[in-house]
Amino acid sequence: MRIQIDKSIKTPLYKQIAEQIQSQIISGEIPDGFQFPSERQLADTLGVNRTTVLNAYKELKADGLLTSHVGRGTIAVKEAAPAVRKTDSRKEPMWEYLFSDYLKNRDTFDVNKYLEMANQKDVISFAAGIASFENPPIQAFKGMEQDLLSNPKGLLVSPVAGFSSLRKVMASYMQKRSCFCHPSEIMIVSGAQEGIDLAARAFVNPGDIVLIEEPSFFPAIQSFRAMGARLMAVPMENDGMDMKILEQLLIRYHPKLIYTMPTYHNPCGVCMSTAKRIRLLELAGKYAIPILEDDPYSELSFEGQTTAPLKTMDKNGNVIYLSSFSKTIYPGLRLGWICADKKLIHHFSSIRQLVDLHSCCISQQIVERFIVNGEMEKYVEFIRREYRERRDMMVDALKQYAPLGLSFTIPDGGYYLWCRLPDGLSADLLASQAAKNGVAILPGMPAYLTKQKGESYIRLNFTFPPKDKIVYGIKILCDVIKKLLMAHQEDEPWNDNEINPIL
Amino acid sequence: MRIQIDKSIKTPLYKQIAEQIQSQIISGEIPDGFQFPSERQLADTLGVNRTTVLNAYKELKADGLLTSHVGRGTIAVKEAAPAVRKTDSRKEPMWEYLFSDYLKNRDTFDVNKYLEMANQKDVISFAAGIASFENPPIQAFKGMEQDLLSNPKGLLVSPVAGFSSLRKVMASYMQKRSCFCHPSEIMIVSGAQEGIDLAARAFVNPGDIVLIEEPSFFPAIQSFRAMGARLMAVPMENDGMDMKILEQLLIRYHPKLIYTMPTYHNPCGVCMSTAKRIRLLELAGKYAIPILEDDPYSELSFEGQTTAPLKTMDKNGNVIYLSSFSKTIYPGLRLGWICADKKLIHHFSSIRQLVDLHSCCISQQIVERFIVNGEMEKYVEFIRREYRERRDMMVDALKQYAPLGLSFTIPDGGYYLWCRLPDGLSADLLASQAAKNGVAILPGMPAYLTKQKGESYIRLNFTFPPKDKIVYGIKILCDVIKKLLMAHQEDEPWNDNEINPIL
Repeated sequence: MRIQIDKSIKTPLYKQIAEQIQSQIISGEIPDGFQFPSERQLADTLGVNRTTVLNAYKELKADGLLTSHVGRGTIAVKEAAPAVRKTDSRKEPMWEYLFSDYLKNRDTFDVNKYLEMANQKDVISFAAGIASFENPPIQAFKGMEQDLLSNPKGLLVSPVAGFSSLRKVMASYMQKRSCFCHPSEIMIVSGAQEGIDLAARAFVNPGDIVLIEEPSFFPAIQSFRAMGARLMAVPMENDGMDMKILEQLLIRYHPKLIYTMPTYHNPCGVCMSTAKRIRLLELAGKYAIPILEDDPYSELSFEGQTTAPLKTMDKNGNVIYLSSFSKTIYPGLRLGWICADKKLIHHFSSIRQLVDLHSCCISQQIVERFIVNGEMEKYVEFIRREYRERRDMMVDALKQYAPLGLSFTIPDGGYYLWCRLPDGLSADLLASQAAKNGVAILPGMPAYLTKQKGESYIRLNFTFPPKDKIVYGIKILCDVIKKLLMAHQEDEPWNDNEINPIL
Repeated sequence: MRIQIDKSIKTPLYKQIAEQIQSQIISGEIPDGFQFPSERQLADTLGVNRTTVLNAYKELKADGLLTSHVGRGTIAVKEAAPAVRKTDSRKEPMWEYLFSDYLKNRDTFDVNKYLEMANQKDVISFAAGIASFENPPIQAFKGMEQDLLSNPKGLLVSPVAGFSSLRKVMASYMQKRSCFCHPSEIMIVSGAQEGIDLAARAFVNPGDIVLIEEPSFFPAIQSFRAMGARLMAVPMENDGMDMKILEQLLIRYHPKLIYTMPTYHNPCGVCMSTAKRIRLLELAGKYAIPILEDDPYSELSFEGQTTAPLKTMDKNGNVIYLSSFSKTIYPGLRLGWICADKKLIHHFSSIRQLVDLHSCCISQQIVERFIVNGEMEKYVEFIRREYRERRDMMVDALKQYAPLGLSFTIPDGGYYLWCRLPDGLSADLLASQAAKNGVAILPGMPAYLTKQKGESYIRLNFTFPPKDKIVYGIKILCDVIKKLLMAHQEDEPWNDNEINPIL
């Protein structure tokens, strides 16, 4: 094997090496089975980087001219050479043409744009839906290592629906939410989102109708749309969805599923009234429609009273209840649960054997211990006070700095304030201008089926931003709003509502 | 409030309590807003179990007659009563009628039956595909608690494709498999199964053709079938799939995807030859078809040489590579990875925002440290020796005890021996008879598209059963086989291949 490299020419060094080896293998100068020097040896010999040799070898392997075996090193493969050389007819797959309707059906609204704004350095983010990082649940982790090491076998594998000990604990936990269920009606999942996904897969055929509050939780809209559902909006009122419209839609369209977040709704913070809860169950019963109740926030109540889930009043088993530890402990655990009819838990489990099999064993063990030793309850009590304080800080700051025309809800719990912008102000423009000034927000559009309906709304999260930045961030945001309003008033066109002929 | 209970009558106590409270609320005797005693108080007063009172209150809540508020206790709600009383028209949803094709499309073969046999107490299980619990990777867990507590913020949330530090580590890790990729081509997933699911969702429309080796990995068959794929079998030979049939299927049916497990195939233990690997890539290139390469076992090589993945030779970017830590560390971590074109990683991530969002942060942290501190390499080296020893034990035991007519492969790596049963013996019958004698096996049927083709095969796992039970378990299994063979020979019907008219 002879290799000469020339640093003065343009061809990259690794390519020079690869080409010379290649021609010598094909010519037979380097025999089949020839043992190559290690990357380090050859690099030292040629006076080049080890990476250069690695890349040369990589190229040759891709051509099928080299092969590596532990213990035998790198070897020339003559026989393979001819077959690989005919590269003319080969091409990269045209991916776009191969993608499924599932991938294409998804709501194409680019929410990632706003999430990226929120992730920029030194940005005060009101855009996320994440727990505070200033108050980590360290009690949840203390002692875990000893637990793991004393019983590592327990970490090997979990049943699909979760460890039965944790399912028992969750059945008792549900009693605190006035829900009485058997452990067989509990399934541990990797976050409430996985519950939405399982339900979407279990029920939705392309073209099926799913009813959803408008506004609603964006990823739920995406999940159902991806499965090919035809979504229909039930408008939100101050006390939950409009029951008259719900009933008309039930009569006319025979939907497959009703998706609702009845308590501390994301994004609009509303709690469904008891009267509407009763009516919703009554209608679901009458038309025999499952309700998917998404309840990640009900424990985070600020006014000294908790609202029991719909599931509590569910006599007929219509309700598939979802909840999560992401908002009360940490999303990084990837842990939530479903409470539903035993038959459904069985079907969801059989689907899940094809997804992530089961939730992380360590997370399950951590959460079980955190609940059983009573530390979870203390922690939730603590963050409830903490988040209430943050909500009040944000509300006070908005009262002080917001311009006339900006209105907002004051939620009794949860993570968000929902603001209606002054007339004529676009949430998208505000989001980009605010980001330039170091504040991230989430515009209302993704939460709506008809995106433009959300253009006058923004969602403000008060749990994630550093506490000492909330007031400052709101002041910046309000300044941006005021500036945009002034600019808007100056150049407001007189004919912005006219419709032009399409030519 | 007056409650009298009568233990002599048939009506359950909780119902007696609920009915009396109900009638008193409706009559107005118990006023709206009435503060009920706590469950414990009422239970003590009436001399019943607390659960009895809990159930009575539950019933009343379901009727909307009671409501609970933390701090305010349990309260009567008069107003709601009339609305709820009309229960005649309500009914449970007819679930079967509501289920999606996704749920119905799944392969209905009941593999859980065999897994349940394996989970019974005191059964020696050769049926599972699970790591040994006798040699836990305890080094992976040591020091983790300190890590977590010193940086709990790192556990809050992870990017969808995984922590970028771990993606970098995995890009280097892939170099050991002779694969050179950029961290942006890596996605951390919750096990290789999630990778199959993401690919199925990204590519498969109902009716699309997917090519799959026969036999193949059962959950992969299920995943594609659930998405509505039409699966076509490429028969396995001793050196991988039949390339002539593959090409004919490519020409005739224009499939969307080829699924393959080229190294230490599950279930049949085969390694695809270098010549076939080159041919496969060439064909995939020519017809521009993506290859889903499932590679959970390649690190578990027993003969001192590792086989580089297909991905190593993938010049055109056809290969979507999947691997997992479930077989080398522990499945309970729920951690695997995809290596593929950056564009695909982006699309897979956008789908995954609707599934489990990201993998457990703690697992990611554990695995990253385990690799970086060099302990992972030592551990894999250890279990490689361990599993080789177990394979040899099983092979020797089979050689000693198996009856004439039972043949099997001796795999160079991985988890399984694939056995062909003596003629006329049914794997299903063997599985149930073996289970009765305390040994669990997996019959071949689930691994085939046409189930009856698998009836002469069984898969034997040598990693999970306790080491000192392998020989004993094989002896029992062989005894059962011999007995069934004798019974079979005695009552073999002379006309079992005749086809009768359908009347």
